[in-house]
Amino acid sequence: MSDPILIISSDCHAGLPPERYRDYVDPEYREIFDVALPIQIEEVKKASKKFLVEDFNVEWRKGHEQQLTGAWDSDMRNQVLDADGVAGEVIFPDGITEMNLPPFGAGLSLPTEGIDPKLQWAGARAHNRWIAEFCQMAPERRAGLAIVPILWSVEEAVKEIEWARENGLRGILIPSMWGSQDPYHHPKYEPVWSACEDTGMVMHLHSGAAPMSDYDDHQGMMGLYISEVVWWSARPIWFLIWGGVFERHPKLRLAITESTCVWVPEALTLHDFRYSEAHYQAKLGDYQSHLSKKPSEYFHEHVFLGASCMPRTEVVDRERIGIGNIMWGTDYPHPEGSWPETSKQLHESFDGIPEADLRAMLGGNAAALYGFDTEKLAPLAARIGPNPAAFASTTKES
Amino acid sequence: MSDPILIISSDCHAGLPPERYRDYVDPEYREIFDVALPIQIEEVKKASKKFLVEDFNVEWRKGHEQQLTGAWDSDMRNQVLDADGVAGEVIFPDGITEMNLPPFGAGLSLPTEGIDPKLQWAGARAHNRWIAEFCQMAPERRAGLAIVPILWSVEEAVKEIEWARENGLRGILIPSMWGSQDPYHHPKYEPVWSACEDTGMVMHLHSGAAPMSDYDDHQGMMGLYISEVVWWSARPIWFLIWGGVFERHPKLRLAITESTCVWVPEALTLHDFRYSEAHYQAKLGDYQSHLSKKPSEYFHEHVFLGASCMPRTEVVDRERIGIGNIMWGTDYPHPEGSWPETSKQLHESFDGIPEADLRAMLGGNAAALYGFDTEKLAPLAARIGPNPAAFASTTKES
Repeated sequence: MSDPILIISSDCHAGLPPERYRDYVDPEYREIFDVALPIQIEEVKKASKKFLVEDFNVEWRKGHEQQLTGAWDSDMRNQVLDADGVAGEVIFPDGITEMNLPPFGAGLSLPTEGIDPKLQWAGARAHNRWIAEFCQMAPERRAGLAIVPILWSVEEAVKEIEWARENGLRGILIPSMWGSQDPYHHPKYEPVWSACEDTGMVMHLHSGAAPMSDYDDHQGMMGLYISEVVWWSARPIWFLIWGGVFERHPKLRLAITESTCVWVPEALTLHDFRYSEAHYQAKLGDYQSHLSKKPSEYFHEHVFLGASCMPRTEVVDRERIGIGNIMWGTDYPHPEGSWPETSKQLHESFDGIPEADLRAMLGGNAAALYGFDTEKLAPLAARIGPNPAAFASTTKES
Repeated sequence: MSDPILIISSDCHAGLPPERYRDYVDPEYREIFDVALPIQIEEVKKASKKFLVEDFNVEWRKGHEQQLTGAWDSDMRNQVLDADGVAGEVIFPDGITEMNLPPFGAGLSLPTEGIDPKLQWAGARAHNRWIAEFCQMAPERRAGLAIVPILWSVEEAVKEIEWARENGLRGILIPSMWGSQDPYHHPKYEPVWSACEDTGMVMHLHSGAAPMSDYDDHQGMMGLYISEVVWWSARPIWFLIWGGVFERHPKLRLAITESTCVWVPEALTLHDFRYSEAHYQAKLGDYQSHLSKKPSEYFHEHVFLGASCMPRTEVVDRERIGIGNIMWGTDYPHPEGSWPETSKQLHESFDGIPEADLRAMLGGNAAALYGFDTEKLAPLAARIGPNPAAFASTTKES
């Protein structure tokens, strides 16, 4: 009988109750923090009412109050993940969605409008200090990410990446939208890419941001948002590929998280087609000789998919998506995630899938990408992980 | 033996040499026209140098100088289309690409930045007057489109649509990007959609516009442009679908032209998935009960594809794209089009395809959508159209 499966969730969230970020904010920003805190809480409440069905969150959270404190309580988090069968995790900000946002607009979606860059930096650093401490409480199972709003200062970004590495974090979250700032094929970002490459820090895009002012308040707003948001989250990938960033930085790695995988095969076909299309080339001139590989090759070597709650259709299509690129995620403690029913969702999606693929997608790929110490995690996985035999189904894969 | 095939090109272009638009511009704008003309010519030259490989255009046009005057010369155009086997055509602006642009930034891509809305309207009206005259010289074979920059004034747009219909035009070209103006799910556009529905005018999006300032002058610029431009051209479709515009206007029809078809199946899967996805619904509330149908159903009933130079891979995938939605186009007189080798390209793409599908995609769908008089066109098609037997190949469809 083979060992239980090591599950690493590539998409988890943690954050402090907002008032508790105060101690982590640079002293010079604490006065502003005190003024901004009630405003932030009020604004987030308004935005959530417009954007989310409040009752749903309230309902979903009922009876889970204790376990949700794992968003910032280390011991509780370990218990919760154990019960969910998850040994390791990659930790993004925004714990209990709207209830644990970092200060000053430094949350997951890193807005570029209506914020003060200096303050966003201050909020990001506050979160980074806390998440570094938090990960040190269980370093073998927690890969924390630093929030790095690279748009505002390349120099500050490089410093923060180095600080994050020195403090045990494993990657950085960058904005997926640049607003009116420079897009990611701009040469000015070279030092950021080099810093990530040199330190082995994985860059991350996480779904969330989209051009909300385009959707506005009219009928169809939410359908448009959920239909487009993945495109906006993935857009930087193409700027990095076409801009030659992966060509120049062969060790640079990027994960795109909670953005589904269904679009990957078609997107790669499109970009490879554009790369190879002779008719356009003639009219438009040489636009690809700076790239030694096809877009799909860069993608499969450099881009990883934080596949939160991956549906069965995507599992079935895993070869075209890239078995080595897929990393399961639970999205704890978000209501759209698989927690606390991860085991049930895993079976729905993965029953009948060959064990090697299963191990890669559920933990192996993430372990390799983030450098988890699988030997140290083995006893934990042996205790809490699912048995691979449980996925061996007589049902034909479909 | 069955009749030769009626070919209607859903994507052709016509325009005057820029100085000759003067007579069609409202008298009050002629003074400005005289000042603007040399500036426009100079700017277009600069932009073309940056954007296109000039040598390629020059080379491609060599030996075709006479036939290219069909961009504005009615008799020459008839000869050229006859020789290409094309009986009917849908006519967009921008004849010989950069050499026949309407005045005042009223060309195909309808920019929203750096233009004066009043002048763009004046330029559009000048072109509309001319194209209406031009189509009247061969009304049975020419379906002309009016340029209608609906962003600037709904009232003016409705008037222009009615004028265009009264003057024999068959559809309108609208901007595919709205810049900082209101997107197409905004209720303010209702009178525009109603006017098109009431007059039977087909709305058109044509590839070209994209957020150029995002691509800028860095390495990868052109690869990003050609990889993204189709997404930007198609984007309004989703705003119309999710905004309930097709729900409220069951007779409204839209064509998206020279934007390939390869993306259609995957895009429909994505939007249908978003429409039906229960997990998101719970968190985000009711975002689709105003739609009685799935996005793919609206698409297949309301959206047509101006499939310029359709490659074989798309022909093979025609069922998923929608056989009834595909309309072949030659893109005459643009260098990326099939002219003057339409016959060769048709065989490459369509050999071995069943005759009914062939007839629908090459002409039948367009005839029905634009109301071409196929009886009147029959003698012409009999003289110049290809024989369907020539496409009956023993090669297996692949």
